[in-house]
Amino acid sequence: MPSEINVGLVGYKFMGKAHSNAYMSVDKFFDCTAKPVMKAVCGRNATAVAEFAQRWGWESAESSWESLVARDDIDLIDIGTPGSTHAEIGIGAAKAGKHVFCEKPLAMNMDESRRILAAVRDAGVKHMVNFNYRRVPAVSLAKQMIDADEIGEIRHARFTYLQDWLVDPMFPMNWRMRAESAGSGAHGDLGAHSIDMARFLVGDLESVVGQKKTFITERPAEGTSSGLSATAGEGTEQVTVDDCSMWLAKFAGGALGTFEATRLAPGRKNFNRFEINGSKGTLVWCFEDMNWLKFYSTECPEHAQGFRRIMATDDCHPYVGNWWPPGHILGYEHGFVHAVYDLLEDIAHDRPCLPDFRDGAQVVAVLEAVDQSMEAGSWANVERVE
Amino acid sequence: MPSEINVGLVGYKFMGKAHSNAYMSVDKFFDCTAKPVMKAVCGRNATAVAEFAQRWGWESAESSWESLVARDDIDLIDIGTPGSTHAEIGIGAAKAGKHVFCEKPLAMNMDESRRILAAVRDAGVKHMVNFNYRRVPAVSLAKQMIDADEIGEIRHARFTYLQDWLVDPMFPMNWRMRAESAGSGAHGDLGAHSIDMARFLVGDLESVVGQKKTFITERPAEGTSSGLSATAGEGTEQVTVDDCSMWLAKFAGGALGTFEATRLAPGRKNFNRFEINGSKGTLVWCFEDMNWLKFYSTECPEHAQGFRRIMATDDCHPYVGNWWPPGHILGYEHGFVHAVYDLLEDIAHDRPCLPDFRDGAQVVAVLEAVDQSMEAGSWANVERVE
Amino acid sequence: MPSEINVGLVGYKFMGKAHSNAYMSVDKFFDCTAKPVMKAVCGRNATAVAEFAQRWGWESAESSWESLVARDDIDLIDIGTPGSTHAEIGIGAAKAGKHVFCEKPLAMNMDESRRILAAVRDAGVKHMVNFNYRRVPAVSLAKQMIDADEIGEIRHARFTYLQDWLVDPMFPMNWRMRAESAGSGAHGDLGAHSIDMARFLVGDLESVVGQKKTFITERPAEGTSSGLSATAGEGTEQVTVDDCSMWLAKFAGGALGTFEATRLAPGRKNFNRFEINGSKGTLVWCFEDMNWLKFYSTECPEHAQGFRRIMATDDCHPYVGNWWPPGHILGYEHGFVHAVYDLLEDIAHDRPCLPDFRDGAQVVAVLEAVDQSMEAGSWANVERVE
Amino acid sequence: MPSEINVGLVGYKFMGKAHSNAYMSVDKFFDCTAKPVMKAVCGRNATAVAEFAQRWGWESAESSWESLVARDDIDLIDIGTPGSTHAEIGIGAAKAGKHVFCEKPLAMNMDESRRILAAVRDAGVKHMVNFNYRRVPAVSLAKQMIDADEIGEIRHARFTYLQDWLVDPMFPMNWRMRAESAGSGAHGDLGAHSIDMARFLVGDLESVVGQKKTFITERPAEGTSSGLSATAGEGTEQVTVDDCSMWLAKFAGGALGTFEATRLAPGRKNFNRFEINGSKGTLVWCFEDMNWLKFYSTECPEHAQGFRRIMATDDCHPYVGNWWPPGHILGYEHGFVHAVYDLLEDIAHDRPCLPDFRDGAQVVAVLEAVDQSMEAGSWANVERVE
Repeated sequence: MPSEINVGLVGYKFMGKAHSNAYMSVDKFFDCTAKPVMKAVCGRNATAVAEFAQRWGWESAESSWESLVARDDIDLIDIGTPGSTHAEIGIGAAKAGKHVFCEKPLAMNMDESRRILAAVRDAGVKHMVNFNYRRVPAVSLAKQMIDADEIGEIRHARFTYLQDWLVDPMFPMNWRMRAESAGSGAHGDLGAHSIDMARFLVGDLESVVGQKKTFITERPAEGTSSGLSATAGEGTEQVTVDDCSMWLAKFAGGALGTFEATRLAPGRKNFNRFEINGSKGTLVWCFEDMNWLKFYSTECPEHAQGFRRIMATDDCHPYVGNWWPPGHILGYEHGFVHAVYDLLEDIAHDRPCLPDFRDGAQVVAVLEAVDQSMEAGSWANVERVE
Repeated sequence: MPSEINVGLVGYKFMGKAHSNAYMSVDKFFDCTAKPVMKAVCGRNATAVAEFAQRWGWESAESSWESLVARDDIDLIDIGTPGSTHAEIGIGAAKAGKHVFCEKPLAMNMDESRRILAAVRDAGVKHMVNFNYRRVPAVSLAKQMIDADEIGEIRHARFTYLQDWLVDPMFPMNWRMRAESAGSGAHGDLGAHSIDMARFLVGDLESVVGQKKTFITERPAEGTSSGLSATAGEGTEQVTVDDCSMWLAKFAGGALGTFEATRLAPGRKNFNRFEINGSKGTLVWCFEDMNWLKFYSTECPEHAQGFRRIMATDDCHPYVGNWWPPGHILGYEHGFVHAVYDLLEDIAHDRPCLPDFRDGAQVVAVLEAVDQSMEAGSWANVERVE
Repeated sequence: MPSEINVGLVGYKFMGKAHSNAYMSVDKFFDCTAKPVMKAVCGRNATAVAEFAQRWGWESAESSWESLVARDDIDLIDIGTPGSTHAEIGIGAAKAGKHVFCEKPLAMNMDESRRILAAVRDAGVKHMVNFNYRRVPAVSLAKQMIDADEIGEIRHARFTYLQDWLVDPMFPMNWRMRAESAGSGAHGDLGAHSIDMARFLVGDLESVVGQKKTFITERPAEGTSSGLSATAGEGTEQVTVDDCSMWLAKFAGGALGTFEATRLAPGRKNFNRFEINGSKGTLVWCFEDMNWLKFYSTECPEHAQGFRRIMATDDCHPYVGNWWPPGHILGYEHGFVHAVYDLLEDIAHDRPCLPDFRDGAQVVAVLEAVDQSMEAGSWANVERVE
Repeated sequence: MPSEINVGLVGYKFMGKAHSNAYMSVDKFFDCTAKPVMKAVCGRNATAVAEFAQRWGWESAESSWESLVARDDIDLIDIGTPGSTHAEIGIGAAKAGKHVFCEKPLAMNMDESRRILAAVRDAGVKHMVNFNYRRVPAVSLAKQMIDADEIGEIRHARFTYLQDWLVDPMFPMNWRMRAESAGSGAHGDLGAHSIDMARFLVGDLESVVGQKKTFITERPAEGTSSGLSATAGEGTEQVTVDDCSMWLAKFAGGALGTFEATRLAPGRKNFNRFEINGSKGTLVWCFEDMNWLKFYSTECPEHAQGFRRIMATDDCHPYVGNWWPPGHILGYEHGFVHAVYDLLEDIAHDRPCLPDFRDGAQVVAVLEAVDQSMEAGSWANVERVE
């Protein structure tokens, strides 16, 4: 059993920062069988990546992913770049015999997803997709409670992921609003999280029907400061992804679901929420109050039934005992630390990881089915990834 | 201008009680141009209706609606019976030249709806459907704020109406679970409220797609006590309506919507909720906290933006000044009093009522379009009622 | 056993309206052993009281309380006037052999309280003080749960009653801001409710220490419109009561308490709230969300402990089954109907009423003890009313 | 200006961990003028402290604070031990010319507080007390809003700090329940935080009156597992500190306050809450929802006034821009990172720190005044620390 795992990270922006923090923190708070060694970080801008390496304590920097995966002293490749690059890097890493940890979404489409899944399977390496919200303690607790039959047979599931950062029409373009780099808009970016959560908590989706829309079709070109007016056609750029998507689902287990993702809901900052109604109880969670899980049980005495607001910060709750005493709330980045902890333990003990690339591919399959339903104006079946 | 309006009420159960209370209370709290006179209440069980009349102060009782509408001393017929009887009674009342106030839904289908609408138009009488939630002060306030452009152009609208009274599979059958008497289940009963609210606040719906399901297909026969086990097939009855429905909509004005109705959501007692996102703000309301309206405005100073919880009980809020001082919360029945007040004023001043039977028919048209989409598995257009 | 109880009401403003509504409604929703007959309403302005009688259906009007209590056809005198008149009217009514229902506070001071209590005892009539919040269903439920030992031995109790209607310094004077008519300000008006609630739920208070303050010492004279500026000294009047009071208590049972009342808390409209911590649970209630009771129990499974938000609108909750189906929320005036229902039943069945004038006097004793502590700057013992 | 600051930490339990994390993280997320170097950690158990040093990346370990402060390569001594040791270590550190960062409370009593304050002043070193809640972004925002006059003149302030970890009478003894090591119970431990918050947001306290109580006077001896029953007198130990304290205050600026601290409030995990009412607005915050600040303003349009729930995670909010995008919530430890960031910047730029040891001493003075009032049963004046 290894006592150390050498990590090479690709990407040094938002996700690079979140992942670096996880590797830095994990062995301080958790007893890791194998500690991560922050060997190298990789990015195309050599100066910027060198600065990032220095700040975060990465031992070295690389300016191409090919050179990173070619290194003998790397055990695990962590992919924190935009989705359009995941397949290429992931396949390269797998071929080089590295374990692969990949940000969501796994890939841009099913074709890429199948290829990257085949690559990690062929190579026999560990593979995990970072759907970080699974490991928020309140969400992990919800999963435990569902598995323990505390809400019974699931009938309805509602998933909404609402943000508002694009409400201002003067907010300028970036890669997330171009189809070629992002694939889709809110639908893929936020919807992927909801789909993974739905599969985690409710199970596989069978068929879907939906709609999407781009309300703000043109924005100031990238680099333009937000708030500056730009004359249409001059200094503007077309938005080529959706602002929002809404869809319905039938789950394989019989439940019905609604899904919604948008970047145009004023006041919703990171409103990643679910409500699941079972035959004997309900669970509700929202990231904006991420430490709390709401629970209603029909099994309480009748006069005292009500939605319970559980503060998931007690020692008896998943992951929490490693941090602070009860009542000391956790934040966004803690989910990343939990994911990295589980990943490192799975590698050390040679166990399968969850969610793995098959899970990641299955999420892409759902996204594609929704796209098909939108084009067809009717229900579409979800491809089952084996 | 009349100083009194003579009322004849059909129905003496849940809605009969709510309407009686409204007629009894309205001229105590509001300055009515024309006061209602509680002339007669009508029901098929003569003993029961006589007792009801006595309790509530109705001057007389009738045991057939035909004899009620035939009376010369009645100006207004109020229909508070199940939906399957609305068309017949409403048409009869209109032919007799009475104004008609009808509980929702207006009728069982579009054919009935067209006929009842034609009848009141032909007769030139006033007609109003009682979508009572429009006149909850917080909802009326939302309408005023939307009309005053406080949230801008509407983009997303979510309507959920969740209840849990059928979660217990031993809850016995009643007329609401039979297609012949109720038409549909949660879809029509709860969905009708959501559709009216959507039309009131957002505007007309253009096309829809949806799904519905009956999870509990058999229940103890009517009269069986809840909680007693019944052997399947013996003492049980088939449920012939839906437990829940979920659907998507495109509004004529360009907004997208989601709708959901169910009687199987543990913990949701009367969770009639909307969230409407505009280009510069959001409004949220839920009946379970009916005195509060939540409002987010992007026009506040940036550091102090947040969802505001407005207690809609101030003198400056619609209807409220007639009740108690600010901060003294109102309940379910107050919406009925407001509806009756507006109805009486409209009759007294010979003004059109809102929502009228065209609105009621339009709601039925949406319900039918959703049904069609469910059968077809694809989007369906909503018929426009002229 | 009487089948009717003839009521004479003194006062026709805020409380007159709330009490009239209760008499009008009670026998519609509740099965009353003896129905109230709205015999006469009394007020000094003959024209105004006649109009009020007509509007609310009182059979007659009187312009002096003496003539009212002298009438043979009155069984019950209901006192809904300012506190400075309670003792005189109450004693007169008792001497005339009438049952007495009195708004809070019972009287202006202990001397008056002792005299009115002696009067009703001497006369052998029923007597009840209207602390209406006791009979909000969620509060009655709290009482049942405490009696059933669901939160264990009580240790801490917090009572806050916050309003904001005097925040605007241009809000003009009225009788509630003059010591001679109101006795005290927030302290007596709001604090009386909190003290009764504390005695109801926790038990008797033993000793107290407190402070109070008048922040806005001068206001536009009565009749001046709010918002109009008045030059100091000209058209202004001195405020002679407190704006707020804060105090600590030791309960006879060993618990410790904090109390606070103010009319200067922006945003708090009718924030009458308690939180009670016992050895195995906590109960929280606030009038602004009056249909909800929050409950935490240490006896739930450890992973699922949390504050439960109980919607106290189910048939199993006190009083509720007489109104609407579960989930249909009640408002401010429903507490008055419940009080009147219990009062009428107690009279009909010749049972003692609660809270009675001894309770009312005990509340005054606590208010006086707090006043003494404020003057002395040290703890004061509460007189025990026998 | 230094580019590095060498840190020596005393204590390696709860606070040692929180402080170590802050030094590890601060220069990753913030642009530090002078970076902290984790030179040495100190504790009496040499083995345990060596393990801690290794885990957290401290360069060396010391087993006596005397040897730590004697080292030439240390610039800053961080004291994270129980309060009974603060004075001795702090004075020793100051005499050795080190800057001192000290956990709250500053010391056990005023005598100690005066001596440690004199020591740092004589030495001319920087000194800061770690009242970490000041630097939760939502609290820092509240301070900015008060300073910008957004709520006007402050009139009422309520501070409650409620926990429930001692509700179980079988929870065994530890140092926090012994007067000799902890000084007091909830009063000093939790009350110190509330007092600092009150001084930060409202200003100095002038006089106080209070009460306290120990409800559970005997507990299983230390080392006993929670939940095991122990026969009284055998294997038990007397609790010598309070379980709770409640007190009133007059602020120098004219506002009135209530304070409460307890460890016996079931369901309150870390309920550190304030509500501050000004002449034109209210601010409310609670640690259990630490990312949110509630704000009510009387300056909004009348129809749309309500408590606003501000998610203090935007770039425009204090400290937040250094972490994640808007809507990504922060946790308990982030306040420590902010404190360490400000401390390091203050040292680097030779600026005074806040809150400094005078602030820390002033908090102790308030605690002592409350103790005096409890003994005297009357109001006590708060000593003013110069």
